[in-house]
Amino acid sequence: MSWQLRAEDLPDLARGATLLGTGGGGDPYIGQKLVERVLGERTITVWDPEDVPADALVIPTAQMGAPTVMVEKIPAGTEPTLALRMLEEHLGRTAQATMPIECGGINSMIPLIVAAETGLPVVDADGMGRAFPELSMETFAVYGVHGSPLALAGERGERVIIDTGDDDRQMEWLARGVTIRLGGVGHIAEYAMTGEQVRATAVPRTLSMALALGRAIREARERHEDPFEAIAAALAPTLYSHVRELFRGKVADVERRTTEGFARGRAIIEAPEGQQMEIDFQNENLVARCGGAVVAIVPDLICVVDAETAEPITTEGLRYGQRVRVLGISTPEIMRTPEALATFGPAAFGLSEPFVPVES
Amino acid sequence: MSWQLRAEDLPDLARGATLLGTGGGGDPYIGQKLVERVLGERTITVWDPEDVPADALVIPTAQMGAPTVMVEKIPAGTEPTLALRMLEEHLGRTAQATMPIECGGINSMIPLIVAAETGLPVVDADGMGRAFPELSMETFAVYGVHGSPLALAGERGERVIIDTGDDDRQMEWLARGVTIRLGGVGHIAEYAMTGEQVRATAVPRTLSMALALGRAIREARERHEDPFEAIAAALAPTLYSHVRELFRGKVADVERRTTEGFARGRAIIEAPEGQQMEIDFQNENLVARCGGAVVAIVPDLICVVDAETAEPITTEGLRYGQRVRVLGISTPEIMRTPEALATFGPAAFGLSEPFVPVES
Repeated sequence: MSWQLRAEDLPDLARGATLLGTGGGGDPYIGQKLVERVLGERTITVWDPEDVPADALVIPTAQMGAPTVMVEKIPAGTEPTLALRMLEEHLGRTAQATMPIECGGINSMIPLIVAAETGLPVVDADGMGRAFPELSMETFAVYGVHGSPLALAGERGERVIIDTGDDDRQMEWLARGVTIRLGGVGHIAEYAMTGEQVRATAVPRTLSMALALGRAIREARERHEDPFEAIAAALAPTLYSHVRELFRGKVADVERRTTEGFARGRAIIEAPEGQQMEIDFQNENLVARCGGAVVAIVPDLICVVDAETAEPITTEGLRYGQRVRVLGISTPEIMRTPEALATFGPAAFGLSEPFVPVES
Repeated sequence: MSWQLRAEDLPDLARGATLLGTGGGGDPYIGQKLVERVLGERTITVWDPEDVPADALVIPTAQMGAPTVMVEKIPAGTEPTLALRMLEEHLGRTAQATMPIECGGINSMIPLIVAAETGLPVVDADGMGRAFPELSMETFAVYGVHGSPLALAGERGERVIIDTGDDDRQMEWLARGVTIRLGGVGHIAEYAMTGEQVRATAVPRTLSMALALGRAIREARERHEDPFEAIAAALAPTLYSHVRELFRGKVADVERRTTEGFARGRAIIEAPEGQQMEIDFQNENLVARCGGAVVAIVPDLICVVDAETAEPITTEGLRYGQRVRVLGISTPEIMRTPEALATFGPAAFGLSEPFVPVES
């Protein structure tokens, strides 16, 4: 069922998207402000994936770059729509809708900026089911829709079109190179597809899930109820039904470096009794280990949140001494097939450990 | 007057182009072999700039990358024509001719590969009047024709279109980033212009000049005459009328590194009496100094050649112990105006010395 998104929904959506960003994806707060500015009193039509006409052209829009740079280099706001228009022009076709490429972090907001500016609807689905650091890590690609041609817009009106055919990793490699030379952030339109292809390749209803999660946390706080129980209740009816507390403790150390266009590093969280959890990240949290043993690993979600309020914390927001809980959330089957794991499972990040579902 | 170029002309053209490459521009020998393979017994029509119809669309084609990489990474040969076709498609117009963007090094040959493959004529002119390391260092740009949109083709069929409007330096910056990620070499089509614009912005008749220079050196050797006198005689009727021997000696040291997509370094040449000449290069020779004093500087040509045969030597061909002469050759007025010097004079390379004509 399609529905209308209002400006009042955005803070809840931002909170849920930060949780699904699993530490990365960029801070959606900046994106939220950009949507609010354009949207005003109007609403955005959100299409359920089942409602997208089979032959409608859907052009996803996003921001790419290192989250550490994104929070310092605020976009003008017009770049994502420019990217969409560039791709339309290159394809010689007009989009009937836009869509997120990932449901975590700022990229839950970028398609809403485009929707608010153009009046296009946004499809309630995405291609990562969370946030991932690379453009090739898409269920779209896993199930046969490729990213090329990609349109990339820079803040000074730079326009770049990249077409690497079926090779989405080469597309990511070249687009990342351009983004680095644009100062670390670019805006893109890619993975153009039909409504039928959305249904075959996307993770469905992740925009509404992010909104429901953010709303559940807020309402629990307002009612002085346990926000962690609210998270579990909000996830139960979705494809992400399992959530588990992996660790509770204090941030003891964060090592962070921005290299090759990514924010990479490791966070160490220490329990009062002295045990430690180590979380490695590349933009997003990739693997959580206790005493060297894997507790949760990509593509499952590893979310660091405030120990009391359940407010999600991004990797660039981690600070020494924060009291946090680490949550593990299971991912849908579409993200755990052998083909999916080959694209964004542990080996795709150079991790030697196999994927083990967080619920097992 | 337009004329026909035959395969037999290519070795002379390659020699002359290496001289005009002033140490850089890539080794034209590889390009020569690629032209020969495609051309066979046929000929290429070379259009004098005066003969190009005023409204004809001319699309220059070239290779970009570090010469040190170019000699190791041989192109398939089809990339430059792919780049031309990509730009035609992007512009929605068909080219009536191609043209070199520089007359030195391998880029004297790349448009000939395109001409041999497509049957298009080549315009006898270019935008550098020598070789320069960056795509923005063009008389085209100095006199109002900009490089964007640029089409860039990779050896595995990668297609990239870059449009930075009037900002040719940003175009160079982004295209260089893509080229580095393609492994150090890419093939491009850029600076699309009309015949009228060719006459307003290009350095004329540099293809025929390169051929005349290479032929003069060869014929002098065959007749056991002085090839250095032949060079002077061949240049006398051209826009590059002044040639002077700057130094004679032995290569004593070469320091060379491939960084940021360029071959940078310094060569030291030592005379028997102990004086030294230092030549700094970024792909091409930029400045020649004796005892710290500038003897010749960009955009004038600084050419290192074999002391006996006058065979030109590229920076990547410099070896310890080679006996060489260093020639300074004056450049045409179109390359020495204040606007031209701002684009490819000493300051554009971070050199603090002012331009001083080599003949003064």
